[in-house]
Amino acid sequence: MSRDPDDVESERRTLISEFLPLFYDKGWVAGTGGGICAVLDDRTMLMAPTGVHKERVAPGDLFVVDRDGRVVRPPQNATLRLTECGAVFCAVVNRRKAGSVMHSHALSAVLAGDLAEGKDRIVIRDLEMLKGIQGGTNADHHAVPVIENTAREPELVGRILDALDRPEFGKAACVLVRNHGAYIWGDDLWDAKRHAEVYHFLFEAVVARTRVGGSLR
Amino acid sequence: MSRDPDDVESERRTLISEFLPLFYDKGWVAGTGGGICAVLDDRTMLMAPTGVHKERVAPGDLFVVDRDGRVVRPPQNATLRLTECGAVFCAVVNRRKAGSVMHSHALSAVLAGDLAEGKDRIVIRDLEMLKGIQGGTNADHHAVPVIENTAREPELVGRILDALDRPEFGKAACVLVRNHGAYIWGDDLWDAKRHAEVYHFLFEAVVARTRVGGSLR
Amino acid sequence: MSRDPDDVESERRTLISEFLPLFYDKGWVAGTGGGICAVLDDRTMLMAPTGVHKERVAPGDLFVVDRDGRVVRPPQNATLRLTECGAVFCAVVNRRKAGSVMHSHALSAVLAGDLAEGKDRIVIRDLEMLKGIQGGTNADHHAVPVIENTAREPELVGRILDALDRPEFGKAACVLVRNHGAYIWGDDLWDAKRHAEVYHFLFEAVVARTRVGGSLR
Amino acid sequence: MSRDPDDVESERRTLISEFLPLFYDKGWVAGTGGGICAVLDDRTMLMAPTGVHKERVAPGDLFVVDRDGRVVRPPQNATLRLTECGAVFCAVVNRRKAGSVMHSHALSAVLAGDLAEGKDRIVIRDLEMLKGIQGGTNADHHAVPVIENTAREPELVGRILDALDRPEFGKAACVLVRNHGAYIWGDDLWDAKRHAEVYHFLFEAVVARTRVGGSLR
Repeated sequence: MSRDPDDVESERRTLISEFLPLFYDKGWVAGTGGGICAVLDDRTMLMAPTGVHKERVAPGDLFVVDRDGRVVRPPQNATLRLTECGAVFCAVVNRRKAGSVMHSHALSAVLAGDLAEGKDRIVIRDLEMLKGIQGGTNADHHAVPVIENTAREPELVGRILDALDRPEFGKAACVLVRNHGAYIWGDDLWDAKRHAEVYHFLFEAVVARTRVGGSLR
Repeated sequence: MSRDPDDVESERRTLISEFLPLFYDKGWVAGTGGGICAVLDDRTMLMAPTGVHKERVAPGDLFVVDRDGRVVRPPQNATLRLTECGAVFCAVVNRRKAGSVMHSHALSAVLAGDLAEGKDRIVIRDLEMLKGIQGGTNADHHAVPVIENTAREPELVGRILDALDRPEFGKAACVLVRNHGAYIWGDDLWDAKRHAEVYHFLFEAVVARTRVGGSLR
Repeated sequence: MSRDPDDVESERRTLISEFLPLFYDKGWVAGTGGGICAVLDDRTMLMAPTGVHKERVAPGDLFVVDRDGRVVRPPQNATLRLTECGAVFCAVVNRRKAGSVMHSHALSAVLAGDLAEGKDRIVIRDLEMLKGIQGGTNADHHAVPVIENTAREPELVGRILDALDRPEFGKAACVLVRNHGAYIWGDDLWDAKRHAEVYHFLFEAVVARTRVGGSLR
Repeated sequence: MSRDPDDVESERRTLISEFLPLFYDKGWVAGTGGGICAVLDDRTMLMAPTGVHKERVAPGDLFVVDRDGRVVRPPQNATLRLTECGAVFCAVVNRRKAGSVMHSHALSAVLAGDLAEGKDRIVIRDLEMLKGIQGGTNADHHAVPVIENTAREPELVGRILDALDRPEFGKAACVLVRNHGAYIWGDDLWDAKRHAEVYHFLFEAVVARTRVGGSLR
């Protein structure tokens, strides 16, 4: 708290530009898709630009926006546009007090969403990795909400807030969007990274178990 | 437009030699296969050599060719031969005004082509990643032409031009060649990279959905 | 033996911090999961901290613990906590005279454990890679114990010791924990790395053979 | 031919120590398995040591052996032992005039060998990548011999020579060893690398086509 806000901002800018190539290598933000944000203070947060090759975002390419998604300070490069995920990021940050949200376009997230088939969730169980979710135990039947996709990302906000408000999804740090991907968050950038790794593992596990065993456990 | 043409050429040579190792790591240009070209101006373009380990192509290894594929300026290394894809690259550049075309030998492209089974296309739908295609929306039923392979690559030109001329493939920035791979293009090198990442994701998605669900959606 | 113990400790600290990013890249220690230990001498060993991003553990982040898992010398960074695997690591080191134990959260280990389905083992055969296990031949029917998971890792100790004491598992350098992962060990860090690579290959092989052929060979 | 033999040897030592980490990253030489050799002149060749982590073999760790596999010049590090593949490498070099042979323990090679099921070969067809094999066309029905594994690698020699002598395998630059892996060769180290990439692609393709389509095409 007593740290220089400029240092905090600089550190988080650097971390975001370090995480994005890592996420790219994992196949989560290919084709300029996906994104990430990180809260700076009670009023502002950093957001990645849209339509750019995410693995090449530099610390100086990020937008500073307020909690309603309005640009407070744009990057110097005037050709950059703010991510379409802005409204969703704000919704998750405000409703869940998340410090960072990442948006994944991973194939495993799409295939995990397919498993919901007409239901509004997938339930993940029988995996030690569930402990990697804040407050999780390996005995959990962990419900992850699955919402339908919309034409444009800001239109997802209502459905995401609905899901976040339902008590049965209280432990979820992830919303799956069918045919699209996932939003995953945590208390800070490191927590969001851990949750991203945990949830993508869980997605791969439920999909693989379906392939091997013929049914979702 | 006012940029020094030598700078433009140098930049594109560097970018090609940067993209090829990236494509190699993704499994798109293994075994000396695959390739890439980039337009320089109204009359000329850069093309990679054939029969070399693509991840090791240096900026100085590229050919400058005209729009009909005739060598204007060969690389200094006289052992290098022009890519066999030259005629296809020229056809796509001329017909679609593409600024860059890449040729992939990815397994996912072959398996996606298998899904056409007797038809002249695959139709990809229900995926947010369709937005990554220029002019695409996630409501598209995106038709990608699938043509039969030929003994030699220049013989593909007629079939590719036929496909490009058909209005139902007007939004496709990709042609699949059965048992072979794909040609993918964009307005410039960055666009071609984005489209390459998007289409390979789509190929993997339709193949995975077939495996999990038993039928192509 | 005549080497300076400080040099030995320094070398092993460095090797652990080199192996962890390697294991991370392979998907064995994602989401802060997994871990590793290495024996220093008859009384002490090095152990990784828990709850941290394993690919970023520095040589100075390790704990020195005694053979009963009590901390002898903590890392300077006072926020680090000792791995939950400590008790299991001690059990394997003491019972099997292992010089190093790694704990994997790989998906292939989970899926291989699934193949046990109600039995207390999987039997791996018909693979040259079995020679990579100390004392192994490619004619072995290599039995790997599979134990049930528990709420907390220290509770695994009894089940692991039971498995280690059974003569039919005498050649195993690995215990699979259902829905969880694997503990794999060797005479030293290099041996543990080799065994980790060998066993993960074997897990992938038995799972893939089940997928392709419809039954575990 | 007029090049200094010391330069040639130095270059090939460097190339081998560059290829092995690449092969390791691809999963071909995990767990200290696999290997590689390169001919130096009419009488001698370089061979990798056995039982070491292949991705860490230094240029100075290689053995110089004669065409019968006898050590002419060992590496300075006296703890290194010659690869068990020596006899097989010699057989392939002598019978096929190969300039380099690599030995893969890839899972895809094992699974491709499984597809032979009681036959002495797999036949690969309908793939452009067949052009990557010296003398290959995409119309080939390319027969790759599959031999049974033996207890020790030198015992494979007879079976491999039998396969190499059969005219129907005249175009194969690869022998699959069931439950084990593959030997793949070329005119020189670069050719062996290209063939290795091509054959592993082909293995993955035939296995994937079996999974998707239910039968080997």
